Amino acid sequence: MDFLDELKFLKEELKFKGRIKSTNYEKIVLAGMGGSGIAGKIFQDIYTKRPFCVVDDYRIPDFVDRNTLFISMSYSGNTAETMAATAAAMKRGAHVVTVSSGGKLSSYGDERIHIPRRDLQPRSAIGYMLIILMRSFGITADRDLKDAYSVLAKLDENNRECQKLAHDILSKKKIPVIYGGAPYKSVAYRWKTQFNENAKIIAYSSSFPELNHNDTMAIALTYGKKNFGFFVLDSEFDYIRKRARLTAKVAKAEFNFIKPQGKNLTSRLFYLIHYVDYITYYMAKERGINPADVHLVEEIKKGLKDVVV
Amino acid sequence: MDFLDELKFLKEELKFKGRIKSTNYEKIVLAGMGGSGIAGKIFQDIYTKRPFCVVDDYRIPDFVDRNTLFISMSYSGNTAETMAATAAAMKRGAHVVTVSSGGKLSSYGDERIHIPRRDLQPRSAIGYMLIILMRSFGITADRDLKDAYSVLAKLDENNRECQKLAHDILSKKKIPVIYGGAPYKSVAYRWKTQFNENAKIIAYSSSFPELNHNDTMAIALTYGKKNFGFFVLDSEFDYIRKRARLTAKVAKAEFNFIKPQGKNLTSRLFYLIHYVDYITYYMAKERGINPADVHLVEEIKKGLKDVVV
Repeated sequence: MDFLDELKFLKEELKFKGRIKSTNYEKIVLAGMGGSGIAGKIFQDIYTKRPFCVVDDYRIPDFVDRNTLFISMSYSGNTAETMAATAAAMKRGAHVVTVSSGGKLSSYGDERIHIPRRDLQPRSAIGYMLIILMRSFGITADRDLKDAYSVLAKLDENNRECQKLAHDILSKKKIPVIYGGAPYKSVAYRWKTQFNENAKIIAYSSSFPELNHNDTMAIALTYGKKNFGFFVLDSEFDYIRKRARLTAKVAKAEFNFIKPQGKNLTSRLFYLIHYVDYITYYMAKERGINPADVHLVEEIKKGLKDVVV
Repeated sequence: MDFLDELKFLKEELKFKGRIKSTNYEKIVLAGMGGSGIAGKIFQDIYTKRPFCVVDDYRIPDFVDRNTLFISMSYSGNTAETMAATAAAMKRGAHVVTVSSGGKLSSYGDERIHIPRRDLQPRSAIGYMLIILMRSFGITADRDLKDAYSVLAKLDENNRECQKLAHDILSKKKIPVIYGGAPYKSVAYRWKTQFNENAKIIAYSSSFPELNHNDTMAIALTYGKKNFGFFVLDSEFDYIRKRARLTAKVAKAEFNFIKPQGKNLTSRLFYLIHYVDYITYYMAKERGINPADVHLVEEIKKGLKDVVV
């Protein structure tokens, strides 16, 4: 699939019906790296009924036991860290649910969710991963998903704003700094990683209110202030909105506020997720590089295949 | 206290004997912002026997209930986010332990740990906060703390290396990028915040192995590559050490490896925490700014005092 088609495919992922059957566990741990782990991190920001912990490493927490729901997500089904974490969780007797499009992972698990194999970049499968979680734990409904589909389709048709932002960042060689706040803390992190992987530039993310305890002084007084491009994922929570505006004023910085569109949380989440797809796609295009290329990630995987943890 | 004396005071904090008495709860939630929250985040990386969740916001997770140990940390005892989170936890019937040097927080809680009032910057009280947690949950022993004390004392006497690094960063106007890995993931975040607050420059942190799924391409191909100063907090885990070295090679980047000193985890953790105290202190000195000054953080607090969450 061409990378642009891959981006447009996000809305189709919302239709996926796969879900976890046994969700009634005391503790939930999700293992996943990159795009899969990010789905877990975004979900953690919006689901707090039970302790939900994301593992982005080989090792699992000591508390994983028979009373733990352990969700292993890997689009390829061959992510080394996720495989190691899953094997450890199985030994502890956790209820293991694997989510993959194939690979070794797909033949393990007390429950196995198979997502369609379309050779997407793993980061492009975030829609599948997040929707499985949101459906399984009742955070989204068919009506929400229908609205989200049309919000994404509209962005696929018209994303000139994203192209303009891409050109603005590039022409001034800006380093993107993305600030989120509830419920979009980890969506800000998704933005960082899309800048890294698609546009191949360094970026970083942080969140309100925590950043007011450290970043604030730096925004105001750092050297090279003009080299940074500040983005705020605007929140529907008034306390976050006010903080963001006061921070811009106090630190004398220009913040780009990105307003999420849509009638419900599902739509707004996916709108923000998709928005940076286009910014980073246009950046790669303007830089003359392939947004899909991640050959160094592959090189590192190969170089570490004999590592024992 | 002069800021340099404040930094040197870190080793004295290790002697604090305060501890949480009732630790036997199913779930643990720690509320804290800035330096207090960071103590919780660092602790979360090394204690995984039970679900341990850090809240750096006003709102608390829905799962907080009578079976939850809720630890509220605020050096001043007046942090708005922590106060709101604590009030909510009390309503839910959680076992609340407050840790403060005074303020409103000190008169709440089923258990109250009072730390000495010395008018430190809240970020300089990280020793108290972390040692309370490590002692309470049996992660450190008197012998470890004795070694840690002497490791810190040595760094107080000789920190020319830190001064050299400070000068190197400043003279090239570099943006620090700090990479951690187990067990120092959140120590890397502490580094970021000390660069922000003491040196007043923008910095960012990330951790292995997750960063190999996104940062890697960016390190190799970003524009302005020479503007970044990469630091790696070296791990005692071989799988992290190998990754870090392979990443430097594959992405063709110069990484500064910081080797933790000390015979045990407590010493090494505090060595790494203290090391950046000196880097950022010397940076502030060379920039001619006051490392203790955080007047914009105060301005934001004042501007938001009527905000309802």
